[in-house]
Amino acid sequence: MVVQKSISFRTSGRGSHEITSDVNQLVSASGITQGICNLFVLHTSASLMVCENADPDVRRDLETVMQRLAPDGDPAYIHTTEGPDDMAAHARTVLTDSSLSLPVQQGRCILGTWQGIYLWEHRTHPQQRKLMVTIYGE
Amino acid sequence: MVVQKSISFRTSGRGSHEITSDVNQLVSASGITQGICNLFVLHTSASLMVCENADPDVRRDLETVMQRLAPDGDPAYIHTTEGPDDMAAHARTVLTDSSLSLPVQQGRCILGTWQGIYLWEHRTHPQQRKLMVTIYGE
Amino acid sequence: MVVQKSISFRTSGRGSHEITSDVNQLVSASGITQGICNLFVLHTSASLMVCENADPDVRRDLETVMQRLAPDGDPAYIHTTEGPDDMAAHARTVLTDSSLSLPVQQGRCILGTWQGIYLWEHRTHPQQRKLMVTIYGE
Repeated sequence: MVVQKSISFRTSGRGSHEITSDVNQLVSASGITQGICNLFVLHTSASLMVCENADPDVRRDLETVMQRLAPDGDPAYIHTTEGPDDMAAHARTVLTDSSLSLPVQQGRCILGTWQGIYLWEHRTHPQQRKLMVTIYGE
Repeated sequence: MVVQKSISFRTSGRGSHEITSDVNQLVSASGITQGICNLFVLHTSASLMVCENADPDVRRDLETVMQRLAPDGDPAYIHTTEGPDDMAAHARTVLTDSSLSLPVQQGRCILGTWQGIYLWEHRTHPQQRKLMVTIYGE
Repeated sequence: MVVQKSISFRTSGRGSHEITSDVNQLVSASGITQGICNLFVLHTSASLMVCENADPDVRRDLETVMQRLAPDGDPAYIHTTEGPDDMAAHARTVLTDSSLSLPVQQGRCILGTWQGIYLWEHRTHPQQRKLMVTIYGE
């Protein structure tokens, strides 16, 4: 059994946004109780992350780490069409995940106590982001 | 057909620990001969990796690389509650994988000659780590 | 329903090579119209990536980013058996993806307008690379 739905979010610019309850609503509505929930972002400047959900400073520090690994406005970048955050956003996406497969049990994603599912916007300005959610199992 | 089992490991502190045979035992016991085996770590300071399994120096060098990308005790970190390795461990997890989907054929994971599956502990002290293993197919 | 096929590519040395149409041909031939297509690279010095497919400079800049994160010939590396790109290639693989799960709808992978699927060779010399493609669904 396979259920597929798309889901859209308006981001508020760079930063990570928790989507755990949005995903679990789709899993619950699918009628699938045991299996896998696959999330896929249909963009190359936003990604998915499983992250600590208790202290928001963790996600602030992740921005610091990412700013070092793929700095905005790096003079070495050739692809600068859409501004200083353009290429940085592609690199951040490649260093994290476009696709995420989560176990489903009793009609919801199984997560650890401190885990949340996040959509991570890497562009500095707000964007419309679409995810494909594929739930399969029994 | 979906078979789901959890599996726990006591890590010995930071470093990667091969779990290929543990995973293959679960795959074999599931009775599923062809499909996918999904692994998911229920923690935000440990991750999964497919890595070269012949020379342990590869995994030592990966620690060196990670120590540069997400240094312990970085003065820029705000989240320092549990010590200098706390935020570094979250960042290492985000840069690697919480979820891994491996092809299954003839009742075991298909891996290249030099590939092993590893649980990667990013905290410096030993921890109890739980994985959810979901095997599905025919 | 599960269909599994292997597919091989001769790379031309370091760099990323688009495989979207090769993957979609296998999906179409599988007869599965809705589900998931999992790709898995059977090597530890090559990886998979979903990336911007319009401007090749994006992928050139990604090489620049990767060269900083995991430099060739880093004097800190212990594993140097096969030359200066050996350990760098393992690190690049671990920082990106060995496994990728893509949603399938109407007999092809659902991708965003600017997304392509790439095989990323991290060794400087050409290599033979094998992928396992597992398509499952209805």
